Amino acid sequence: MPEFLYGHWAVMEALRAGQRPLEQLLISESVEEKGLVADILNVAKEKQVNVRRVPRRIIDDLANGANHQNMVMRVGPYPYKEMEDCFEVARSRNEKPFFLLLDLLKDPQNVGVLLRVADAVGIHGVFIQERRSVSITPAVVSASSGAVEHLNVVQVTNLVNAMKELKEQDVWLVGLDIGPDLPPIDRTDLDMPIGVVLGSEGEGIRRLVRDTCDILLTLPMRGNVASLNVATVGSIALYNAWQARSWQGWSSK
Amino acid sequence: MPEFLYGHWAVMEALRAGQRPLEQLLISESVEEKGLVADILNVAKEKQVNVRRVPRRIIDDLANGANHQNMVMRVGPYPYKEMEDCFEVARSRNEKPFFLLLDLLKDPQNVGVLLRVADAVGIHGVFIQERRSVSITPAVVSASSGAVEHLNVVQVTNLVNAMKELKEQDVWLVGLDIGPDLPPIDRTDLDMPIGVVLGSEGEGIRRLVRDTCDILLTLPMRGNVASLNVATVGSIALYNAWQARSWQGWSSK
Repeated sequence: MPEFLYGHWAVMEALRAGQRPLEQLLISESVEEKGLVADILNVAKEKQVNVRRVPRRIIDDLANGANHQNMVMRVGPYPYKEMEDCFEVARSRNEKPFFLLLDLLKDPQNVGVLLRVADAVGIHGVFIQERRSVSITPAVVSASSGAVEHLNVVQVTNLVNAMKELKEQDVWLVGLDIGPDLPPIDRTDLDMPIGVVLGSEGEGIRRLVRDTCDILLTLPMRGNVASLNVATVGSIALYNAWQARSWQGWSSK
Repeated sequence: MPEFLYGHWAVMEALRAGQRPLEQLLISESVEEKGLVADILNVAKEKQVNVRRVPRRIIDDLANGANHQNMVMRVGPYPYKEMEDCFEVARSRNEKPFFLLLDLLKDPQNVGVLLRVADAVGIHGVFIQERRSVSITPAVVSASSGAVEHLNVVQVTNLVNAMKELKEQDVWLVGLDIGPDLPPIDRTDLDMPIGVVLGSEGEGIRRLVRDTCDILLTLPMRGNVASLNVATVGSIALYNAWQARSWQGWSSK
């Protein structure tokens, strides 16, 4: 079934990544071809994607009322990968596996923010459970500014089983949890093959998932409002792990 | 002029912090007194705040269409502080000053997220410019989950002048900027009296502000979508600085 991606960066990155069938780009009649819109149209032309001008209300309908910035692109389904593809990325870059596991996250905005950060730190693969969790919907693509189009996302039937498979392949599972008894995130050397495990909004990591982790760490907080959004916690944890890898793959002058 | 705070946590933290006049709490007639709502009503009672049940459409109007969760509280204006108050917090905690400076940020959501993190890491004071920048509106209070009610925020006439005053008091100004020539955030020991300076969405730090910083650092990014939201960048930078202070003030077991 076709999907409709919406918004400038979702469309742009789907075009650039070219990971899924790109069927047609629909742009509102009133939009001028300049700036980022002109750039997007150029890339669409390069990729030989059909472009059509339509009345804005058609785009409103196709984007289901979301903030579409006057464009939607009809595309094939999100191209989920296999676990082996993620290991292959690590091998091809000559890096220790660096994975992200999301346990039943529900909010497309949070997942989008996390996937954008996952792209920024060079995560080799993201694992989400097929049921009871958000999947890579157009809302997630937009919230990630299109970053997820460049990532390897694996949809697994059962997250705990996937964790066991990862452990058999010597990946060390690091769960982020809340609790005064837990060591802070920088107490452990994260420069090893790891999977960072994040729990869902409100409920945190499920018990069986927690028990399957090799270590649990916590993000310290000292304020009056002692809670942070999972997207914030996860972003900081991913950067912490990448910092432990000395910003591997980052080319500064 | 009274303001109307909206949403559970904005109301709760304003009640708890008690930093500004609390005039009246308005709750939708239909809401049941249980869970968090019951907790809020208890705190309101303790603080002797008048509570009134009103039709939901009155709350819709007072919250200006925002997601108010069936409650608004009429309060006095946000109690901005002076620079000296921020130094006083640092002294009273026996800590090196740890400040946050926001250069012309415009989006209440971003500012709210940053202030929530600022509270979590124990920032002693936040400096924002009076004009051309977001101020502490009810939208910011809600986006911060009420955390800003516990913070010291200083509204300055001119950010560059404020930076010069801070430098005279031996605060070291660390600007977060984008650029391949800049060292990464962990290259410098941030365990000293610092002010972290963040630029605005899209435009970054203004030149004069940048020139007034003592050092510029960057957050490495290696992905295909080489940009992150200022709230994400700032959150990671603040945590990095607090980590350099060995999570001072955090009591783990």
